[in-house]
Amino acid sequence: MIVLGLDPGLGTTGWGIIVAEGNRLAHIANGRIATRTTDPLAARLAHLGEQLNQLLIAHDVVSAGVEEVFVNSNGQSTLKLAQARGCLLATLGFKRIPVGEYAPRQVKQAVVGTGAAEKTQVHAMVKRLLPGVQIDGSDAADALAVAITHAHHLATARHTSALSPSPRT
Amino acid sequence: MIVLGLDPGLGTTGWGIIVAEGNRLAHIANGRIATRTTDPLAARLAHLGEQLNQLLIAHDVVSAGVEEVFVNSNGQSTLKLAQARGCLLATLGFKRIPVGEYAPRQVKQAVVGTGAAEKTQVHAMVKRLLPGVQIDGSDAADALAVAITHAHHLATARHTSALSPSPRT
Repeated sequence: MIVLGLDPGLGTTGWGIIVAEGNRLAHIANGRIATRTTDPLAARLAHLGEQLNQLLIAHDVVSAGVEEVFVNSNGQSTLKLAQARGCLLATLGFKRIPVGEYAPRQVKQAVVGTGAAEKTQVHAMVKRLLPGVQIDGSDAADALAVAITHAHHLATARHTSALSPSPRT
Repeated sequence: MIVLGLDPGLGTTGWGIIVAEGNRLAHIANGRIATRTTDPLAARLAHLGEQLNQLLIAHDVVSAGVEEVFVNSNGQSTLKLAQARGCLLATLGFKRIPVGEYAPRQVKQAVVGTGAAEKTQVHAMVKRLLPGVQIDGSDAADALAVAITHAHHLATARHTSALSPSPRT
């Protein structure tokens, strides 16, 4: 199963794509979608959506994890982030790709084993879980961590469903 | 020139389409795009984008005004609104439709003549400026007000440009 992880941002959105078969993970690709601060907002958002769409097609993504946005003290940066995230989620929605949303704490918990982990610990674990991966910067590393979290979540959900004699439908 | 106005919202986005020839305005259509609160966020955003896209095609929209989002005390509602707005702006961006962004005060100023106008005054002026219009609720009325504001802005910009002997290009 090809799983995408996204770390949304208006200036830079990190993305990571892995293949997950049960508990086995392998790296496929990762990178960044950058927008020009001199472009109008609508053009920047369209660029994010168009680039994501190309990734979905090129890699035949079937499921996606997206990091949640939190309201922080800088209202304007929260707005920018939320607008970027809305555009990315809609692009996944256009293709009817199921989306899991994860808080940063959940990502740290899934990848490192504790919600209080440092970013460097998360990045180190991403490299360990995906041997030989070359990571295109911090945003792409975060995105790969989200993809791993989403893959774990899907594997656990399938396992739970397989154990249950009468799954809710 | 066919001009669209949008009043973004995740639950309900108001839209209004007018034709503007110089200072003359006429109503074409208005309405609401509603999403189901029971649907996943990505599906709701995709629905907003898809419905807007159909409006752009059906009415051959060439320019759009979109109301600005402000950070308010309820962080979660600001996030929802910003994500909806991001998706709508990206949909306009995909079609390379130029976008003007207007604060609520600018809309009130353009339509009523004072930035401190009440909503009821704005709606009454929309009806006066677009004779015979049947308005599909408050969100659609706000969207028509944004369309009128954008049309005024475009007419003023053209007028200024026509008066200027050496326009900046």
